[in-house]
Amino acid sequence: METQLRIAVIGAGYWGPNLARNFSAGPDWRLVAICDLDRERAEGLAARVGNVDVVTDVDDLLARDDIDAVAIATPARTHHALALKALAAGKHVMVEKPLADAGERGRAMVDTAAANGLVLMADHTYCYTPAVLKIRELIEEGALGDILFIDSTRINLGLIQPDVDVFWDLAPHDLSIIDFILPGGLRPQTLAAHGADPLGAGKSCVGYLVLPLQGGAMAHVHVNWLSPTKIRQMVIGGTKRTLVWDDLNPQQRISVYDRGVDLGLQAVDGVERTAATVSYRLGDTWSPALPEREALGQMAAEFAESIRDRRAPRTDGAAGLRVLSVLEAATRSLAKDGAVVGVEDPAGAEQLAGAR
Amino acid sequence: METQLRIAVIGAGYWGPNLARNFSAGPDWRLVAICDLDRERAEGLAARVGNVDVVTDVDDLLARDDIDAVAIATPARTHHALALKALAAGKHVMVEKPLADAGERGRAMVDTAAANGLVLMADHTYCYTPAVLKIRELIEEGALGDILFIDSTRINLGLIQPDVDVFWDLAPHDLSIIDFILPGGLRPQTLAAHGADPLGAGKSCVGYLVLPLQGGAMAHVHVNWLSPTKIRQMVIGGTKRTLVWDDLNPQQRISVYDRGVDLGLQAVDGVERTAATVSYRLGDTWSPALPEREALGQMAAEFAESIRDRRAPRTDGAAGLRVLSVLEAATRSLAKDGAVVGVEDPAGAEQLAGAR
Amino acid sequence: METQLRIAVIGAGYWGPNLARNFSAGPDWRLVAICDLDRERAEGLAARVGNVDVVTDVDDLLARDDIDAVAIATPARTHHALALKALAAGKHVMVEKPLADAGERGRAMVDTAAANGLVLMADHTYCYTPAVLKIRELIEEGALGDILFIDSTRINLGLIQPDVDVFWDLAPHDLSIIDFILPGGLRPQTLAAHGADPLGAGKSCVGYLVLPLQGGAMAHVHVNWLSPTKIRQMVIGGTKRTLVWDDLNPQQRISVYDRGVDLGLQAVDGVERTAATVSYRLGDTWSPALPEREALGQMAAEFAESIRDRRAPRTDGAAGLRVLSVLEAATRSLAKDGAVVGVEDPAGAEQLAGAR
Amino acid sequence: METQLRIAVIGAGYWGPNLARNFSAGPDWRLVAICDLDRERAEGLAARVGNVDVVTDVDDLLARDDIDAVAIATPARTHHALALKALAAGKHVMVEKPLADAGERGRAMVDTAAANGLVLMADHTYCYTPAVLKIRELIEEGALGDILFIDSTRINLGLIQPDVDVFWDLAPHDLSIIDFILPGGLRPQTLAAHGADPLGAGKSCVGYLVLPLQGGAMAHVHVNWLSPTKIRQMVIGGTKRTLVWDDLNPQQRISVYDRGVDLGLQAVDGVERTAATVSYRLGDTWSPALPEREALGQMAAEFAESIRDRRAPRTDGAAGLRVLSVLEAATRSLAKDGAVVGVEDPAGAEQLAGAR
Repeated sequence: METQLRIAVIGAGYWGPNLARNFSAGPDWRLVAICDLDRERAEGLAARVGNVDVVTDVDDLLARDDIDAVAIATPARTHHALALKALAAGKHVMVEKPLADAGERGRAMVDTAAANGLVLMADHTYCYTPAVLKIRELIEEGALGDILFIDSTRINLGLIQPDVDVFWDLAPHDLSIIDFILPGGLRPQTLAAHGADPLGAGKSCVGYLVLPLQGGAMAHVHVNWLSPTKIRQMVIGGTKRTLVWDDLNPQQRISVYDRGVDLGLQAVDGVERTAATVSYRLGDTWSPALPEREALGQMAAEFAESIRDRRAPRTDGAAGLRVLSVLEAATRSLAKDGAVVGVEDPAGAEQLAGAR
Repeated sequence: METQLRIAVIGAGYWGPNLARNFSAGPDWRLVAICDLDRERAEGLAARVGNVDVVTDVDDLLARDDIDAVAIATPARTHHALALKALAAGKHVMVEKPLADAGERGRAMVDTAAANGLVLMADHTYCYTPAVLKIRELIEEGALGDILFIDSTRINLGLIQPDVDVFWDLAPHDLSIIDFILPGGLRPQTLAAHGADPLGAGKSCVGYLVLPLQGGAMAHVHVNWLSPTKIRQMVIGGTKRTLVWDDLNPQQRISVYDRGVDLGLQAVDGVERTAATVSYRLGDTWSPALPEREALGQMAAEFAESIRDRRAPRTDGAAGLRVLSVLEAATRSLAKDGAVVGVEDPAGAEQLAGAR
Repeated sequence: METQLRIAVIGAGYWGPNLARNFSAGPDWRLVAICDLDRERAEGLAARVGNVDVVTDVDDLLARDDIDAVAIATPARTHHALALKALAAGKHVMVEKPLADAGERGRAMVDTAAANGLVLMADHTYCYTPAVLKIRELIEEGALGDILFIDSTRINLGLIQPDVDVFWDLAPHDLSIIDFILPGGLRPQTLAAHGADPLGAGKSCVGYLVLPLQGGAMAHVHVNWLSPTKIRQMVIGGTKRTLVWDDLNPQQRISVYDRGVDLGLQAVDGVERTAATVSYRLGDTWSPALPEREALGQMAAEFAESIRDRRAPRTDGAAGLRVLSVLEAATRSLAKDGAVVGVEDPAGAEQLAGAR
Repeated sequence: METQLRIAVIGAGYWGPNLARNFSAGPDWRLVAICDLDRERAEGLAARVGNVDVVTDVDDLLARDDIDAVAIATPARTHHALALKALAAGKHVMVEKPLADAGERGRAMVDTAAANGLVLMADHTYCYTPAVLKIRELIEEGALGDILFIDSTRINLGLIQPDVDVFWDLAPHDLSIIDFILPGGLRPQTLAAHGADPLGAGKSCVGYLVLPLQGGAMAHVHVNWLSPTKIRQMVIGGTKRTLVWDDLNPQQRISVYDRGVDLGLQAVDGVERTAATVSYRLGDTWSPALPEREALGQMAAEFAESIRDRRAPRTDGAAGLRVLSVLEAATRSLAKDGAVVGVEDPAGAEQLAGAR
């Protein structure tokens, strides 16, 4: 068996405990330290995950040479500084979503990781759920055909965040999933974001994001903190089949419908002829069995494997940048009352090797 | 008992038979004739609804003085000419949705009706369902508080229409309902429409409509011909309660959630203070019993009552114009790739008397 | 094309109109008369289905020689006398469920039909729905393996019938379906029926029927007039797969689960060894597309075909007898407070030829 | 604040960890020891819940005088001996369901506890969920009226247990809940149990339990290890309202329907008159908000309170006996192929004081 990699978790707040638990449980990793400014909080977490060191100064932590990697679970505005320090100290880095609080800062993180030959991974947890892995697999093998539209809804009565709007709070989930399942990743050239702040909270609490994709297709994301009902659903329409993912239905999370519309493409001489050759398929529905596996365990394994194989992880820094780029454009569109704005292409930073 | 009003149905195609059946069944109306260019089709319908005359020439029909009103169920592009003729002949007029194929033409119809002292009614059928009537009543009596957002979804694998896009085909339902339940009607000043035509059908098959409302609220409509699952749902969020209407759940169509977010308004000195005073209500859910009544029967009764009382019907020509105005703006926004565009205020035409 | 068969419907009350409509619509039949003691009711129905004769005396009707068959939709207590008269007059007969109000009387009907070489068909309408036809097909081709259990639920706030209990009112549906889909038909040797009359209505309003099947399998039927929620669901467990039919879910009526338990049969030396070799399958779910077809139309076609082919129809008199036999045993069990009682085997009457 | 009571958990297998976690978390209890024959398993659990002693010999444990109570989470066949020992040592006792593996043994436990003035509590966990507590409250305050029927379904693809059938495995949940919510507890005089073993597992894998209640009402329980779909639903019909508890719908666990049937009681002279005065209510549906609270925490609090107040706990030994009595009668009925059998009334043992 291979030697275990050694990791420290930075941040013992909301998400850190989940990371700590998974890095201490799997075969790939040995969790060696918890780092948090709040010693008591760090000690509480350390006690729950077994015998690990407690550190309050991140510089002390990064100076140790018995640590291969760090997982950063601190507020987004601190990601940039912490990641750069860790990369400078030769550590591989995983960062909770979003990658950073600004695209430029995220870019600097990606560039530094590339320059230092280290792995920078975005903690896009949903991408490691059995449901999303299955969706990616189905799209890759062509089961859906070409993608026609993606409609994602993520609404419920949610906590109104003090520092970010509903787009930055919830949409990273949808965007990182769409980025993960689309063969070329999420690379819209333009977008429009429409937000509403009907309570006067000072930020959007209801949000709609329109993302034109290649070939006339479109992705749409609805995020909402004010809905009394909870919906987490994604519909992915394809030329061959259409998939519905209902994450709140554990008995049938994924349904693949062999239903759709076929346009007779030979009809070129007019709208009416085209319509005349429309045909509808009303075939069976199929729901694949999904294994019961915790996503974070899969992500920890992928992080380890990417380090060992010296390759970019499936959700690498570039994926994090693509999500950031969309969020930044959304903020620009909101500032212009929903105008269509361009989305910067964050590609360019070279990774170790493309995993996609 | 009052004398029955006498009506003729023009158009014996898809919708005409429903109108004919309801006008022949209720106590208010006597159906006297069916008019269609296709005599055989008109005769077939006439036979099914009892002893009524069959007419193929609309001028012959309108020349009769034993007819008080006509119900027009022909293609939208013919509404304008037929309605003007009927109004000129002194008949009250009901028109299938949409009121006309262009706002200007709809305006002419409304103006003519007003000038002639006749009723012009839009056949916004959904507004007479028990569910929508109950929603309007709940909003009127303040059960929801101020409206914060309206999110309407109307999707399923639908027929791709030869002459109109998915907005003109499906959104009139959502728009007429929103117009009906909002105390001041639907009067957005701007909107954005985003459409996708991923199959190359020559028109939008997937559509999103964003309608900013007063006070920072927002309405959003999602219409889609390509969805394998059928959803007809409207969420109406208010400051007091939130209502979910699921039209495909006959056992619980309307749910009123006593859940929501309360912002402490006294916190004026900064975002963080505001967030600190957010509170969440997680109260009971309530589902009102709804009577089983056919909407078209209710609409026929309202048409009769408005004629007798010499008042505008609940869904009058002005309501039809407001819907048209939004659809036309949507078309302009689509032409500009989703840019935010102004919506013309169609108000101005004087009606008999405001029913709202 | 073959000559149409000529039929009369006897009984213009609740169910007769449905029969009349379907016999007048299809290619196989010509509806020639409606017979009802209440002339006005018969005339009303005759007008709605086109030009057919109205007859009030059943003897007059049966004396006509332009009638090949009759469909009887009168109260159950009259089935026996009417059917015997019709068979004596040489007419083929279809009878609304239940076949008769007593097993002995049903037997006489079956015997007379056999003796006269005429078709006697039970109107087990559900057996001609696309869902039940598909279930039968799946069981026949072995997709479920051997049947382990059938659990059927048919509950909602229903009309308390004046003359029959909840078993005789609702269970004929479940029983006729189970009879139809089981390869050998429904032939339990014993049963127990448990009924509750908590309102003091003088008859069971809540009922449970336990039907041991061959090989240790069991069928169970729950019928209930007092439930505020409506459930129409049947679970059919098999050694290979299990099927769930939810008749109130038009979007996914039938789900076939590739899930189940496999017992290692080689473990013969003790309970614990057996348990040790239990294995569980957690495979995919599959929902076949079902055509949209009205069941009564299919039933009318089968009636015509069985007459032309001189064979027993799929739901023949013998099927009706098997259902009656179970209902009678249920009544005996109820009289003994739920004791297990024997079920008489109604087989024996020879039909034209076995269709099964 | 009151001094904490001190408790030890006996049994560190499947259920013990849940008990240990809750007794170590709440304010009422101090968890002082884990006792298990398997030292390693006990140590593993002790480490996860903080600094508690590990004991492998139960006699050593019971000899300690720093322990007020024990919670027994060992196989059912060991409950009797362990509880008697603990009671003899002066400890209060909580026992995992079922109370014992035989009614007589359970009775001895109850009698001994009463004789020694100690609390004996049955771990009927479901009775402390917010849903069941709310149901009990609604019935107590008369919101449902008199109970007409209870229909409980608890089915899914479950583990086939090596030592018990599906009744003893699953039905204790339903029975303890019904016992808890019925004002007088569950005291049927007779019952019938129908089981099926279609796989040849040597025990029932599908089971139905019929329990006539007072006044013509009936309870029915369906338990099933072979169902591919998971259902946990209880319908409780009352003269005023009917309640549906769907434990798998976290968004609306409890629905109270103001629907039902009212029989005109003045109609005394015959069945037909009675039926003629049936009326149906179709009122609103109401779903109470339920707090999010872990049931085991509530149960631990009740155990402490009953000890301090020297009263019987809500789910006392007598409740455990009533459940046992039904299970034993079910086994007798099964041995007679579903015959109706008498249920022994386990009442008689005096408790400290009736909490009900």
